[in-house]
Amino acid sequence: MSAPDPAKLSLNTATVRKQWNLRQMIEGCARHGIRGISPWRDQLQVLGLKEAIKLIRAHELTVTGLCRGGFFTAKDWRDDNLRAIEEAHELRAQCLVLVVGGLPAGSKDLASARNQVKEGIAAILPEARKAGVPLAIEPLHPMQAAERACINTLEQALDLCDFFQEGIGVAVDVYHVWWDPKLEQQIKRAGKKRILAYHICDWLAPTRDLVSDRGMMGDGVIDLPRIRSWVEGAGYSGFHEVEIFSELDWWKRDPDEVLRTCKDRHKRVT
Amino acid sequence: MSAPDPAKLSLNTATVRKQWNLRQMIEGCARHGIRGISPWRDQLQVLGLKEAIKLIRAHELTVTGLCRGGFFTAKDWRDDNLRAIEEAHELRAQCLVLVVGGLPAGSKDLASARNQVKEGIAAILPEARKAGVPLAIEPLHPMQAAERACINTLEQALDLCDFFQEGIGVAVDVYHVWWDPKLEQQIKRAGKKRILAYHICDWLAPTRDLVSDRGMMGDGVIDLPRIRSWVEGAGYSGFHEVEIFSELDWWKRDPDEVLRTCKDRHKRVT
Repeated sequence: MSAPDPAKLSLNTATVRKQWNLRQMIEGCARHGIRGISPWRDQLQVLGLKEAIKLIRAHELTVTGLCRGGFFTAKDWRDDNLRAIEEAHELRAQCLVLVVGGLPAGSKDLASARNQVKEGIAAILPEARKAGVPLAIEPLHPMQAAERACINTLEQALDLCDFFQEGIGVAVDVYHVWWDPKLEQQIKRAGKKRILAYHICDWLAPTRDLVSDRGMMGDGVIDLPRIRSWVEGAGYSGFHEVEIFSELDWWKRDPDEVLRTCKDRHKRVT
Repeated sequence: MSAPDPAKLSLNTATVRKQWNLRQMIEGCARHGIRGISPWRDQLQVLGLKEAIKLIRAHELTVTGLCRGGFFTAKDWRDDNLRAIEEAHELRAQCLVLVVGGLPAGSKDLASARNQVKEGIAAILPEARKAGVPLAIEPLHPMQAAERACINTLEQALDLCDFFQEGIGVAVDVYHVWWDPKLEQQIKRAGKKRILAYHICDWLAPTRDLVSDRGMMGDGVIDLPRIRSWVEGAGYSGFHEVEIFSELDWWKRDPDEVLRTCKDRHKRVT
């Protein structure tokens, strides 16, 4: 594998969410020559959508995704997802990432939760198509099945895409799928049409927390060049979005150091 | 679902491993009317195999499994597995549970680790067949892929069983597989022939540790009666083995209370 194009690096703003507000994140990307950004909606709300759009355009950043829609098993999922689609449209985001939601409170019925997700997507997809916003189902690691997302493999997400056909695809986050024995096969199946986003970080061994102990690329056990070769082999030529939740490490560091490290590792080990 | 037969409860001794030695575990099972036991090899070594066999037979306990063989990506895997087969034979264990091992130290090559596992099983399976000891591949939760087992779904384990055919099957542990969208389908595929053990506990939400924060049946989100209905529907009529790693809770409790709770929950919520 040749080294990835540095121009394809994107920052998922979760990576520095404890240190910076969205204005600082946008300016940080510009300062470090990072050309893509994927903001979270809570940060957008604080800064204001119009101001965020103005800053992002002024710095000519590509919005590689909006995080996030989904949570179809929670209350108010419909209105919240329709607002998210509208925001993604305004931002010209390449996709709206769907973290689909886990078990409803008190429920043990995974099959039913999965049906709710399917029905939820069916309800919002026509609006997303009208707005020109592709929906990216993000299969989350099985350890998140109860609390965050009951779509847990790429195969399962792609079965949903096959059912819905147009306007929907997947976000492939190495953290969630690296372990999957069918990963290469399912990335191939997804192809250029279905892969709407590619997220990178690393799996630490040991991992100390189920949610917020992701590693910087190169610090864990994921064979990032190999997975990139599969994704590119399938036809994906978009951004590589760094998304690191790290309560114990990177959220404690100087955010300029974090961005410098992302750039360096992206070039050297992904 | 009707309540499970209390005579089918088995104790995986990991459940009280911080409180009791194997002699106390065997006597504890007998005292509480638990008719099956699945010991760990480190505990056997401390008590002595002959003494363990004498006690287990005196109390007429069924050995529902021996934990564990496997770790094919570690050094000395061959000799260690051959000893485990011999011990399982002596104990008349219903199977030898294989925790197959994760990535070798320093490696990021999952595909190669999985090949090593296949080759390791190929090397020991003839001995296991000769000894009349069925090998039970235990797919471990994907969050254990790096450190403990690179076989992470029932489908993947059953593909290996199909390859090897005779003398091999799976241990279905709800903790590892409950999230799997293909669980019902793959349990059906496994059938009576391949399901060699059925392990129960619960998935806590939130889970505070990736290894040792399992829940007692009923305290988490796993739909235990539903999974039992699938397993029994596939023809399995063996024991239900409770295996709870719980640094933060059950390992701190009076072991007699733990066994009483296992019996009560087995009857009421599984």
